[in-house]
Amino acid sequence: MHSVNHSDKTWQIEQVGFDLRTAQAYEGLFTLGSGYLHTRASLEEHYGDCPQDSRELRKPANVTAERFKPLPGRWGTFVPGVFGHHPLLLQEMINLPWFIELAPVVAGERLDVTRSEVSGFRRVLDMKTATLTRELIWHTRAGAVLRLRYESFLSGVRTHLSVQRLRLESDSPVAATIRAGIDANVTTNGFDHFTAIALGPDPTAAGVGCEVRTDGGDAVRMEARVTASQAADWEYVEEARHGWREATFQVTPARPLTVEKRTAVATSRDPAPLAPAAILEQAAGRNWDELHAEHAGHWAQAWRRSDVEIDGDAEAQLILRSSIYHLLRAHVPDDTRVAIDAKGYAGEAYKGHFFWDTEAYLLPFYLYTDPAKAKTLVEFRVRMLPAAQELAKHFGYHGARYPWESDADGRECCCAFQYAEHEIHVTADVVYGLAHYLAATGGLDNAPAPFARVVVETARYWLDRVDWRPGDRHASILGVMGPDEYAPITHNNAYTNRLAAFSLELAARLGGRGGASREEIAAFARTAAALPVPRSAANPELVLQCEGFEQLAEPRFDQFWADRQGCYAARVSQERLYRSKNLKQADVLLLMVLFPDEFTDAEVRAAWDYYVPVTTHDSSLSAGIHALVALRLGLDREAWDFFLKSASIDLDTVHGGAAQGIHIAGCAANWQVAVHGFAGVKNTLQGDVLAIAPRLPARWRRLAFPLVWRGVPLRIEITADQCTVENRGAAGISLRVWRHACRLEPGQTTTVNGQQRPC
Amino acid sequence: MHSVNHSDKTWQIEQVGFDLRTAQAYEGLFTLGSGYLHTRASLEEHYGDCPQDSRELRKPANVTAERFKPLPGRWGTFVPGVFGHHPLLLQEMINLPWFIELAPVVAGERLDVTRSEVSGFRRVLDMKTATLTRELIWHTRAGAVLRLRYESFLSGVRTHLSVQRLRLESDSPVAATIRAGIDANVTTNGFDHFTAIALGPDPTAAGVGCEVRTDGGDAVRMEARVTASQAADWEYVEEARHGWREATFQVTPARPLTVEKRTAVATSRDPAPLAPAAILEQAAGRNWDELHAEHAGHWAQAWRRSDVEIDGDAEAQLILRSSIYHLLRAHVPDDTRVAIDAKGYAGEAYKGHFFWDTEAYLLPFYLYTDPAKAKTLVEFRVRMLPAAQELAKHFGYHGARYPWESDADGRECCCAFQYAEHEIHVTADVVYGLAHYLAATGGLDNAPAPFARVVVETARYWLDRVDWRPGDRHASILGVMGPDEYAPITHNNAYTNRLAAFSLELAARLGGRGGASREEIAAFARTAAALPVPRSAANPELVLQCEGFEQLAEPRFDQFWADRQGCYAARVSQERLYRSKNLKQADVLLLMVLFPDEFTDAEVRAAWDYYVPVTTHDSSLSAGIHALVALRLGLDREAWDFFLKSASIDLDTVHGGAAQGIHIAGCAANWQVAVHGFAGVKNTLQGDVLAIAPRLPARWRRLAFPLVWRGVPLRIEITADQCTVENRGAAGISLRVWRHACRLEPGQTTTVNGQQRPC
Repeated sequence: MHSVNHSDKTWQIEQVGFDLRTAQAYEGLFTLGSGYLHTRASLEEHYGDCPQDSRELRKPANVTAERFKPLPGRWGTFVPGVFGHHPLLLQEMINLPWFIELAPVVAGERLDVTRSEVSGFRRVLDMKTATLTRELIWHTRAGAVLRLRYESFLSGVRTHLSVQRLRLESDSPVAATIRAGIDANVTTNGFDHFTAIALGPDPTAAGVGCEVRTDGGDAVRMEARVTASQAADWEYVEEARHGWREATFQVTPARPLTVEKRTAVATSRDPAPLAPAAILEQAAGRNWDELHAEHAGHWAQAWRRSDVEIDGDAEAQLILRSSIYHLLRAHVPDDTRVAIDAKGYAGEAYKGHFFWDTEAYLLPFYLYTDPAKAKTLVEFRVRMLPAAQELAKHFGYHGARYPWESDADGRECCCAFQYAEHEIHVTADVVYGLAHYLAATGGLDNAPAPFARVVVETARYWLDRVDWRPGDRHASILGVMGPDEYAPITHNNAYTNRLAAFSLELAARLGGRGGASREEIAAFARTAAALPVPRSAANPELVLQCEGFEQLAEPRFDQFWADRQGCYAARVSQERLYRSKNLKQADVLLLMVLFPDEFTDAEVRAAWDYYVPVTTHDSSLSAGIHALVALRLGLDREAWDFFLKSASIDLDTVHGGAAQGIHIAGCAANWQVAVHGFAGVKNTLQGDVLAIAPRLPARWRRLAFPLVWRGVPLRIEITADQCTVENRGAAGISLRVWRHACRLEPGQTTTVNGQQRPC
Repeated sequence: MHSVNHSDKTWQIEQVGFDLRTAQAYEGLFTLGSGYLHTRASLEEHYGDCPQDSRELRKPANVTAERFKPLPGRWGTFVPGVFGHHPLLLQEMINLPWFIELAPVVAGERLDVTRSEVSGFRRVLDMKTATLTRELIWHTRAGAVLRLRYESFLSGVRTHLSVQRLRLESDSPVAATIRAGIDANVTTNGFDHFTAIALGPDPTAAGVGCEVRTDGGDAVRMEARVTASQAADWEYVEEARHGWREATFQVTPARPLTVEKRTAVATSRDPAPLAPAAILEQAAGRNWDELHAEHAGHWAQAWRRSDVEIDGDAEAQLILRSSIYHLLRAHVPDDTRVAIDAKGYAGEAYKGHFFWDTEAYLLPFYLYTDPAKAKTLVEFRVRMLPAAQELAKHFGYHGARYPWESDADGRECCCAFQYAEHEIHVTADVVYGLAHYLAATGGLDNAPAPFARVVVETARYWLDRVDWRPGDRHASILGVMGPDEYAPITHNNAYTNRLAAFSLELAARLGGRGGASREEIAAFARTAAALPVPRSAANPELVLQCEGFEQLAEPRFDQFWADRQGCYAARVSQERLYRSKNLKQADVLLLMVLFPDEFTDAEVRAAWDYYVPVTTHDSSLSAGIHALVALRLGLDREAWDFFLKSASIDLDTVHGGAAQGIHIAGCAANWQVAVHGFAGVKNTLQGDVLAIAPRLPARWRRLAFPLVWRGVPLRIEITADQCTVENRGAAGISLRVWRHACRLEPGQTTTVNGQQRPC
């Protein structure tokens, strides 16, 4: 019997014992993914009372307070970009047929962890190799004791390929039947998106084929093949929407059984469609170890580019790695037709939609570890420009307006108007992300024409969206929802105004390249300069979230949320949220993170003191930003607490964790807290010189990570009193560590001693 | 051949010729009703390409800009209170099986006005007797020329009974088959609410029975019986959800055919359920003329109580009568379990829900013509108190909060949150209506305890709903939508604040009777006094609709609505509406109509000048109120134009008219413009003395109407220079006509000469 390597707790997340109450959280947390293909970690044999094909009309709701259908477990098989039409939720990512079925039946008893007698249940996600392993001991009703070990991975090299195996040992001779199939009895948010399903045996091997046509017009083809360590006669069986192979084996103490299942997935969206059978054939010459070795090699390479090492704090190390693991998994390589959905392709709850998370949260991780990945995300938005132009027109404006929730066609998929119609900052966020990409790569002034067109077209929208109220000396953006979604329709939201002004400034700078006239360019500049960041009349140092923010009702946390458990939004009516001074998440503080040099420490402190007491952090996007601001303000304990709060969201399986999917933007925020926060690395929008001002938590002995700075790969290593930067690239860079400035030429390493006070 | 009485154009609405484009508008406009039962005036033989049982998911939408499924005609059969559950629209009034089918087939050709050769199509609603008559000439393909005359009424005396007849004359001998049935192939807003349908022949007569069970738990039973002027063998035929009798007759020039169909409807909601067959038996001894005579007698009595006579303006007379006709029809007699839905039981578009229309618009008509009818409306709200208490609790408040859209169980049935959660003035409107009823009947201080409990419970809600912002010297009601639904979430809406203060004042006055403590009573009074009506800092005479109203964007009518045709909301995005200074309907002006003595003429004028230019009148509730304000301000031309605009809404069949149902609140507003406006009658909340200050439009020679003043029936007659009041009651009243004050004892008549300038 193999045994899981317990040696490195910082690479492995463990589930010990099976509990229906945390089953969905582990399914999400252990999601495997190749970028192209993603599978939630449901159990290969499934269990009773957990149908996956229920039909119900999931209605749009307040996204924060939404309650999902209580199900013990939820399958998830996703190919990014495969969307279908839901009557109420608009376009949604389709939960595809479930192909990981690999289920044993012994003496008529089907393994079911909710009904069988099972001990020693232990599941481990080894993040280093992106491999999922499960062990358990099954005490069958007939008296045999079986040890099972499941292993699976989605190949990082052959991104269409899933590889699984099951090893079965018995303490006595038993007849074990193994079933391996593809099950299309799965709906998405209660809706069936399959317009046609064709199942059948593969005549050339012990295979099962499944092709579904979706209501989005795609064809998705799967082929699963199964082999065993003993000769077998794999019978093909088919029931409604479910086909499988099954064979029976004699398993004795001396003769354990190993079954391997390989599944290939292809869709009509693939740029060069290859039949699943062909994908399987290409891998046919390689055994498990070979396939796993190349897969592990792929992940080793990815980790070399991205790992953040923390010495002295195994817990922080593990949770940061889990964030990076999902960031690596969720990116779809070389595909500009999709971005990364809000749940990191690990759940259907947010319908696979693309939000501002891409620009405001996710982009920096990719930009500073693997810019080619950032490029696909930026080019996704460039590609969606025609849809954004359509959307602007739909609302009666010139130019381009990006949707709050986008599908792979750039359509507005948000079904609640207060977001879809009013949360317009996404259009400026897109441009901010584009600018960040340009600054970190070729430079702002070298923007390719298609990028400049996005900047100009969105600026045209802003020109048209702005109001000039009689009596005001400034322009206004009225009726918006800022990042704080508990203030639904407000005027001159500071974040929105500043981001829109940033957009307009950039359009004034790149306008010629983007096709703007001189008059337009002048108007861009004039309007940018005229958009105010509102401030309190009583305290001009206090940036107001929006006009009239001070006139909202006081929140009543002590009355309704004395225990501070769970979401505040789940405790009070939306109506109360909407009229009260309660923030869902960072809004002014996020603005100050994006434009740190435009606000004094005193202003940041004033905002902190004013907003933090009324911020609920109901959004997973909030805590990480607060950690960054706390670090700026030297609020060490608060910074650490917010970091832990942010970092533990997905791992907190007892409170839901990743049950509905991975909080992928939170993952990216965690990386930002480590690199931009504790390591104190400024970003490329904040200056041409790489500025680093680290301040490590006291318990961290060492923090080390790779970083790509304007195309130059570096390695940065920080200890309590030193910061070492190694230039592994082919060009020199300018560097400032704390107050020490220098050049760092290719191949050079510099170490700067600091007098930092640990935080 | 009978002929329609053309003599009085002021009692009869005419449809000449059939046009599919106006078919639905006439169906709604000609709706018949007994209070208990209502039928849209679809054609008894129906026509092709107009299925009534389509299934589609009607989604909630912005109520103003909503577009309905285009259908040439729409059946409608409604029994107030029979609601079913819709997956998205919540509880909705069910469109019941269609029982008016009475269709001829001659020589194999079925009459179909969209396909047959038809001339002389003419339909008349005689409002005096609530009788619908249709004539047409049918040139059959076989060469015969037939004259048809349909007549129908829903008995005002036997409110469960429909009576129809068809007379058929032919210029040559033909075989005419008559089909008379009940058709349950009807859905409501695309949804099938029938959980069981039982059809069958009545064995004792030429009858068809139909019983449906609804998903609301009700049973609805119908029985139709048919007789003819010739002996006939009425065969029973049944197809899916549709049963009918049919028989064939030889019709010659000398032997015309008359067929009579009587249908009785009963439901399990009836207080004393009576089988439809028994209802038919009770009427069996009476022929058409006798049944029609008792029905006409009922309507004559109703008109005596309610008619507003206008001499010199046949057009105004007709449209005002059409308003009164529908107000008389739509009231459900002696039933406190229902109110009057927004479409006056003449369409399913607004789902049969009860709005603030009841209190703010409908109540005065009933209160001053037939107070017993007003009583059922007020008692409906009293009866719904427990549901309103539940709703307050649902939102986290003490006391009682009435739903924006109510069903017969008092549940919130509005499926768009901006109304359901924020348009809270309805709770104060309910109390205003209750106060108006008390003032007009027993007096405020004689409120029965159940009434006082409503006042106290809603006041407890207001106490809890109010915010006291630090720094303010006043209380606030934050985050509300006022009557102007284009300003969705605003603070201290003047209308809402004043109405809530009125509620609290009344609770302070009636509190003891309603179970309030002394401390509560003091808090009611204190809070009432602390709620502000906001005013413009620049012009204190200008009442602001809400805080910050002046900071909204300027509307852009000239850019988007230069032609001023149709709704403004259909031209711009909701997002633009929500951030701009564009009113859907009267808001501050409505407040000034309800509390005329609290605002100076200068203040009313300032409001008029400020709001009218930015008011779209997208709501049918707007024009009538503007007519009343214009009359106060002496803006005669504007008053007349607004009166015509309001009065013509349902009659304007070319622009939709009553296609989706009757604008019943608009009907009531029209009556108010006549009685409170042109006749200048103050209401009982405005003083104990009946104050009348008429000013007739120049073309009106005489305006005469009955009025019940605090239980005393009066008759008021106004000419260009005189006003005569006759006391037909048993008690004296105090009266002021213009500046002339007097007592008017029972039996007395007084005439006052005025120096009024015609308007």
